[in-house]
Amino acid sequence: MGYNTRLLISCPDKKGLIAAISQFIAMHDGNILSADQYVSESSGRFFMRLEIEGAGFGLERGEFASAFAPLARRHGMDWKASYTDAPKRMAVLVSRYDHCLIDLLWRWDAGELEAEIPLIVSNHPDLASRAQVYGIPFHHLPIGENKAQQEGEMLGLLDEHEVDFVVLARYMQILTPKFVSAYPDRIVNIHHSFLPAFVGADPYKRAHDRGVKTIGATAHYVTEDLDAGPIVHQDVAHVTHRDTVDDLVRLGREVERRVLARAVRWHLEDRVLVDGNRTVVFE
Amino acid sequence: MGYNTRLLISCPDKKGLIAAISQFIAMHDGNILSADQYVSESSGRFFMRLEIEGAGFGLERGEFASAFAPLARRHGMDWKASYTDAPKRMAVLVSRYDHCLIDLLWRWDAGELEAEIPLIVSNHPDLASRAQVYGIPFHHLPIGENKAQQEGEMLGLLDEHEVDFVVLARYMQILTPKFVSAYPDRIVNIHHSFLPAFVGADPYKRAHDRGVKTIGATAHYVTEDLDAGPIVHQDVAHVTHRDTVDDLVRLGREVERRVLARAVRWHLEDRVLVDGNRTVVFE
Amino acid sequence: MGYNTRLLISCPDKKGLIAAISQFIAMHDGNILSADQYVSESSGRFFMRLEIEGAGFGLERGEFASAFAPLARRHGMDWKASYTDAPKRMAVLVSRYDHCLIDLLWRWDAGELEAEIPLIVSNHPDLASRAQVYGIPFHHLPIGENKAQQEGEMLGLLDEHEVDFVVLARYMQILTPKFVSAYPDRIVNIHHSFLPAFVGADPYKRAHDRGVKTIGATAHYVTEDLDAGPIVHQDVAHVTHRDTVDDLVRLGREVERRVLARAVRWHLEDRVLVDGNRTVVFE
Amino acid sequence: MGYNTRLLISCPDKKGLIAAISQFIAMHDGNILSADQYVSESSGRFFMRLEIEGAGFGLERGEFASAFAPLARRHGMDWKASYTDAPKRMAVLVSRYDHCLIDLLWRWDAGELEAEIPLIVSNHPDLASRAQVYGIPFHHLPIGENKAQQEGEMLGLLDEHEVDFVVLARYMQILTPKFVSAYPDRIVNIHHSFLPAFVGADPYKRAHDRGVKTIGATAHYVTEDLDAGPIVHQDVAHVTHRDTVDDLVRLGREVERRVLARAVRWHLEDRVLVDGNRTVVFE
Repeated sequence: MGYNTRLLISCPDKKGLIAAISQFIAMHDGNILSADQYVSESSGRFFMRLEIEGAGFGLERGEFASAFAPLARRHGMDWKASYTDAPKRMAVLVSRYDHCLIDLLWRWDAGELEAEIPLIVSNHPDLASRAQVYGIPFHHLPIGENKAQQEGEMLGLLDEHEVDFVVLARYMQILTPKFVSAYPDRIVNIHHSFLPAFVGADPYKRAHDRGVKTIGATAHYVTEDLDAGPIVHQDVAHVTHRDTVDDLVRLGREVERRVLARAVRWHLEDRVLVDGNRTVVFE
Repeated sequence: MGYNTRLLISCPDKKGLIAAISQFIAMHDGNILSADQYVSESSGRFFMRLEIEGAGFGLERGEFASAFAPLARRHGMDWKASYTDAPKRMAVLVSRYDHCLIDLLWRWDAGELEAEIPLIVSNHPDLASRAQVYGIPFHHLPIGENKAQQEGEMLGLLDEHEVDFVVLARYMQILTPKFVSAYPDRIVNIHHSFLPAFVGADPYKRAHDRGVKTIGATAHYVTEDLDAGPIVHQDVAHVTHRDTVDDLVRLGREVERRVLARAVRWHLEDRVLVDGNRTVVFE
Repeated sequence: MGYNTRLLISCPDKKGLIAAISQFIAMHDGNILSADQYVSESSGRFFMRLEIEGAGFGLERGEFASAFAPLARRHGMDWKASYTDAPKRMAVLVSRYDHCLIDLLWRWDAGELEAEIPLIVSNHPDLASRAQVYGIPFHHLPIGENKAQQEGEMLGLLDEHEVDFVVLARYMQILTPKFVSAYPDRIVNIHHSFLPAFVGADPYKRAHDRGVKTIGATAHYVTEDLDAGPIVHQDVAHVTHRDTVDDLVRLGREVERRVLARAVRWHLEDRVLVDGNRTVVFE
Repeated sequence: MGYNTRLLISCPDKKGLIAAISQFIAMHDGNILSADQYVSESSGRFFMRLEIEGAGFGLERGEFASAFAPLARRHGMDWKASYTDAPKRMAVLVSRYDHCLIDLLWRWDAGELEAEIPLIVSNHPDLASRAQVYGIPFHHLPIGENKAQQEGEMLGLLDEHEVDFVVLARYMQILTPKFVSAYPDRIVNIHHSFLPAFVGADPYKRAHDRGVKTIGATAHYVTEDLDAGPIVHQDVAHVTHRDTVDDLVRLGREVERRVLARAVRWHLEDRVLVDGNRTVVFE
């Protein structure tokens, strides 16, 4: 087999889960390349991520589900398998800021991101040339008077391109619940503050007014509540009294792109599981 | 002269301030060891900190004020001079947590903090032995039924010991406006969150519930508004899904003591000026 | 059982190891609280750390070894089990600098370190009072003319107190191979530079001369080669042109104590395994 | 005047320098926007950076030198003035790695870097398309059999384009003394290690072999001694046992581009002065 199998599992915790799962894999001659496990105190759930080497493994992708289903049913598992030769199909949504987009595209080109990028969508035409550098189709969908219509077209495009995962790379629009529910735990947004500080608009301006000495950025899954979804990653930068709002914006760009890129990478490698409003990240 | 003179100035910005001030010092044969300057865009004010070498300077501490007053009046300066042989008199207020107190005392003993510590005050008796290690008088003032009375006694003690500066090293009581106004911009508190996130009680518990990936601590001057005073310093620590509330408390202790110690050091060395609700820190 | 069992394993990698180990634990009704695993590309070895809940586990500490031995033998495992009700016995060696010692003792007192500290040993009498605060016996063993003799006495003391683990908390002496070989991978030293930069004496002075903009500290296991043992943890602090050698020493103290404390905590919780000259740290 | 004047000064320290300089500026109706000053303990030299507002300043760029010369002569000053409407002319030298180049160009396009970029030069053709995105001329100068000849052509090009400042953005060639001496303290290189650790080739491989837990990058002025010039900026990233050499390379790219960009920005804004083998950075 030319690909590895990745298995993500969550279920109510009980004794013997690791034994049962690893026994199942051993029975099929699988070599476990990496195994991560965590039991959540707050939810009582068990989370696991496994990567199984392709060479020698007895279960092809077409066979895995039916072989694993009985075990999964017995333990009440939520699970999914993915395969390293089938990278996720990722759409990037942008408005006018280019720093996150350029950074993601550069990393993708450098081989840092396991993804196909079938399209970039924007409500503004500005960044078309950025997409062109890497030969990725750019769709300009202006919002106009009817936002629902624009979102409908966007959903149509994503569907048509069989998109698995949506990245909001400073997409300056609030998505409707309809859109959000189409990609549960599969839309990552970058918010330009250290959440839960400065939820909403103009976080750098408000950070400056408050006189903070550190600014931050937060990558989170998008839910219906604005800026309240499960946090995947956060980081900060130090600032001083000399930094104007423009300086915060400049320094913030560096944090935003770094935080978003890391969250995207983790999602693409199936390293993030959702535990209520928290995330489990198997780095 | 066996001491250096430190001069802190703030006034409306205008041309020629640096020339006027440095000319004044040169006229009196002063050697400027360090000079820091900043003009605040938001308030239009000029801020300066100067350290003048003792050797050769023609103005003794008794003479400085009358010599400098005309210049200060002409430019509408708020100013104060301090002298490096007269360290500030610092009181430390604590409750039951010892980490910030131990750290401050160790640093003080190691010569990192330019201060005299005439007393430590607590509403609990628990930390008396910590004070004793360094031979510092410890006053236990329980709050009992009448908080105003306890604060009155505390103010009396601070007054009696000629205290310049008050550090709340995890003092778990909210001070009354009367107390706060007795030491304007001269009370530093350590808040165990990254303000303005998690104002108020139980920040680590709330940070855990929100699923943040970074926790922080904030040192700020105390004003009448809870946790809303000018921020002097902030820092953070990364956390993961594996960290329980107790782990956040443990990791937070390390950040708290580091952030508080740095803010205290800067205040003691006259490096912090207040610009509205922001601080200018000449590191 | 009132204690959890921790199992550390390393062996040549092969298929089925996780299944075999977890099956063994499940067979004895063990509940795996946490499991970490790693395969080293450079050495081809498999490393694992397991924590098994006491409640319900069928193997008491007296029974574990004989039950596990056949499996271990079959796979060529190096392994050891430890038990959370039997913390390691840790000796701290110091000279005159107190910052690492005070920090370790404060953390120990705060419950951050799973250890008993039967003794502190020093070649100088200065820090006796630091030990006394926490009621820990302090042994002053001056070096005098015969270093071998002093080390002999020290080894005698450690042996008498059944010490498992030795921490060099700025102990300013080079240990002989004889001493080092008595505690293989069980002596942690803090070096006050970012190794491999500034091996040997006076790293802060040399860092200042070189004009670096960041200083660091390194915690490592002690081997016969000076400052060349496996690194457990490293961290840094930023410095500027304004920082004198004394400032570097001051800022470095903060990094040193933080880095050492973390390495000690990891060792005490059996989170560190040695892979040639590298360490595997299951945080 | 539509531009500000920046003045960089270094000279032997003595009393009254700040007064003399600020008096000179006040005499010509200059408004000092920012002033930074430092006295080096090791060299006994005084360093100063001033930014003087254009509006109202009585000295145009053509007049400044002759007006300032007498004062400069009296105090033995090395000095230079620059003007904010005349950004430096910066050449970027690259080989095959694109991350530093893309980052610099993006920042330049975003207005973060005060520079004109008349040309990019490379010994390989690979990155021509990166330059083209921003419309910057790309010169491919292969090294072939005669390196001196290639360097000669390069010097010719830089001269022809009136280049002030050269950035080695992962230019994988060692420059000859002749080239270096043509741009003293005006060539910045990014070295992919935390100098002085891992001087020379393959630092990531060597860092991995040594088992370090932190990797770094260093921006420094180029001198005749390899990797030994004055350090402008350094930063690090944490790594774990799981990170392969390829991971270090990937994580290192992020540090390299951040460190280089900051050093370049500081140089362009005349914030860096050289003090022997150290730098003074007025951030």
